[in-house]
Amino acid sequence: MARINESYRRLRAGYLFPEIGRRVRAFEAAQPEAPVIRLGIGDVTLPLAPAIVSALREAAAEMGTKRGFRGYGPEQGYEFLLDAIREHDFAARGVDLERDEIFVSDGSKCDTGNIQEIFGAECSIAVTDPVYPVYVDTSVMAGRSGAADEDGRFAGIHYLVANEANGFVPEPPRERVDLAFLCTPNNPTGAVASRDQLARWVAWARANDAVILFDAAYEAYIQDPALPRSIYEIDGAKQCAIEFRSFSKRAGFTGLRCAFTVVPKALTGSTTAGERVCLNALWQRRQTTKFNGVSYPVQRAAAAVYSPEGLKQTAEQIAYYMENAKLLRERLGAAGFTLFGGVHAPYIWLRTPQRMGSWEFFDRLLVEAHVVGTPGAGFGPAGEGYFRLSAFSSRENVEEAIGRIRRVFRS
Amino acid sequence: MARINESYRRLRAGYLFPEIGRRVRAFEAAQPEAPVIRLGIGDVTLPLAPAIVSALREAAAEMGTKRGFRGYGPEQGYEFLLDAIREHDFAARGVDLERDEIFVSDGSKCDTGNIQEIFGAECSIAVTDPVYPVYVDTSVMAGRSGAADEDGRFAGIHYLVANEANGFVPEPPRERVDLAFLCTPNNPTGAVASRDQLARWVAWARANDAVILFDAAYEAYIQDPALPRSIYEIDGAKQCAIEFRSFSKRAGFTGLRCAFTVVPKALTGSTTAGERVCLNALWQRRQTTKFNGVSYPVQRAAAAVYSPEGLKQTAEQIAYYMENAKLLRERLGAAGFTLFGGVHAPYIWLRTPQRMGSWEFFDRLLVEAHVVGTPGAGFGPAGEGYFRLSAFSSRENVEEAIGRIRRVFRS
Repeated sequence: MARINESYRRLRAGYLFPEIGRRVRAFEAAQPEAPVIRLGIGDVTLPLAPAIVSALREAAAEMGTKRGFRGYGPEQGYEFLLDAIREHDFAARGVDLERDEIFVSDGSKCDTGNIQEIFGAECSIAVTDPVYPVYVDTSVMAGRSGAADEDGRFAGIHYLVANEANGFVPEPPRERVDLAFLCTPNNPTGAVASRDQLARWVAWARANDAVILFDAAYEAYIQDPALPRSIYEIDGAKQCAIEFRSFSKRAGFTGLRCAFTVVPKALTGSTTAGERVCLNALWQRRQTTKFNGVSYPVQRAAAAVYSPEGLKQTAEQIAYYMENAKLLRERLGAAGFTLFGGVHAPYIWLRTPQRMGSWEFFDRLLVEAHVVGTPGAGFGPAGEGYFRLSAFSSRENVEEAIGRIRRVFRS
Repeated sequence: MARINESYRRLRAGYLFPEIGRRVRAFEAAQPEAPVIRLGIGDVTLPLAPAIVSALREAAAEMGTKRGFRGYGPEQGYEFLLDAIREHDFAARGVDLERDEIFVSDGSKCDTGNIQEIFGAECSIAVTDPVYPVYVDTSVMAGRSGAADEDGRFAGIHYLVANEANGFVPEPPRERVDLAFLCTPNNPTGAVASRDQLARWVAWARANDAVILFDAAYEAYIQDPALPRSIYEIDGAKQCAIEFRSFSKRAGFTGLRCAFTVVPKALTGSTTAGERVCLNALWQRRQTTKFNGVSYPVQRAAAAVYSPEGLKQTAEQIAYYMENAKLLRERLGAAGFTLFGGVHAPYIWLRTPQRMGSWEFFDRLLVEAHVVGTPGAGFGPAGEGYFRLSAFSSRENVEEAIGRIRRVFRS
């Protein structure tokens, strides 16, 4: 009898963004003429940069020629891309990585879920609250949790509260934890960890033989060059951290699909008998067995991000989004809203007016202002009373949305 | 303490194709002037068809425009591709599928591994022997096996021997099994299941509440229109089978990455308490949580496979490869080799001369004829004494390889 994985039954209804999608579609069906502005899912909106489109088109043409055709590529990614990543993202910031410490993939969402496969089922997991829901849901699916309580918190998962008191960057866990997800610049709060904060996380992980699963998908939005962009800028991090990077937000690849994960060779885990095992070798085995590499033209497009034109064009896109973030911060702030984030990240974390429930605020914003955002409660109970606005939109839409929000919530 | 997934330690050294790659690289380093012909890994060699390249280039250009840009797509795939699949691959053969019974992905290798996540850890697995190694390795990684014996067979996995006596299509298992991988047309043997054989598998699965994981990645190579291309052509299969399809071999997408998996809504699994749960909903949850969909230009390229030009051009490519298969069968057969497969599949399954070990035959073929094939033992102990030759090559290479093999192994 084919039994199902009953861990799936513990998941709470609908992944956050599909639920938002359902509510928006229902509203649009009811009021088809309402001009809805989406500052919700956190998806880029600017077209792909010309350097990226050219690389994609050239690689496509190449695949149509006898000499240029490429079939199965190396599962870890082509050397031309691995070398561009090593040089621009790491060596330029003083971090030396070997080529085979980098694994190109089709998304950080996939990788942050799949990485758990190389760890024992008994490993305990810590996440922040609020948190990007994928870390929690994939942990539950993997059987690393008990049931959820009324607030949606799962037994067996450690929640580190990110709140106004700690500037939305929690300290490392005090209880015994084996794996900890840390996302900075943070989705959803827009907070960014300082060098000192990261150093405390690394010291904690090394002292406790824990592994930090460091999600740096938004590193390109960091404005202050003194802030670390990679956890490997912290001494000792190669012994205790796996880093996830993505071209999605950095270069508009949400529809193209390219990301990479760094698993340093110095990083080990333990067997029950106490033998140390190289995690890089386990992830390499996982990827060569269960993955066939990223589409060749997409890898060429990703490499073009590092060309002189690609760097310039994608920097302009990021500056454009960050100007949106600045407008949201300043104008909604001037209107009396209390806001966080949006300085080194494309997300604004807004305190709801009069401690309104975040789904209630979502519905009011949708129905009265025709603006879609993301309810903080969707990211965990500590997100209740907050709301995420994304800077990924056109200037026109951001300005229009600001105007509408101010009109609806004028005090 | 971060513990590793110790199931990985049960895996046998190196996945087959990396091992072949290592041996070939060592040979080429030693004899750089030797003109090696690769009939090994089973990778397509013809350039992408013009209709596919055009679609890819057009979609790339579209992504560079304000109106045409697309970010995150639906995780299950765009409707334009789902509808083309429904119409051409299923409705045309009398199989009605709903759009949301089809899940577009970046590869069948990923899907055949990942699908196991929706089943309970206690589910037992059957595979054929010889077998595509991914089914076994991913089952081991998921903890569904004990240790391997000397022959490389894992305790807890049920092996169904495919041999000359059963025409390399085993009957369904007699012992209790919950999940069974079945690949037809078969990799590596090139055998294809008849309608009657598939009907017996479906009857077995329904009688035993088992699920058939049906890998139809090579269905486009079936020459006889009376043979089933989808397991859903058999009555009752929607209640007991998941089908994997790929554009890799059908349209040369091994470097582009696109495939799809069908999970019918009529298919259910059981909870421990006996409740029936729709597997389509579980897979939908898995994919929306852990996957972000296939690159948009690649989905446009896949849809172009179904355009009139795409259908014609890809049919010509398949005919080209199948002519290679015919030459291999006929000329090596005339030289005294005993061969199987190659009629409805791009693989020739060759009995090694004088019962030579298959890795020994591999090394002799490489060193003496400079031809790379795949040792049958790499697919399981029942593959010992056999060898896989792939028809994926140029006519010139196939003819040259045939000549060399005949010279080295002349009797």
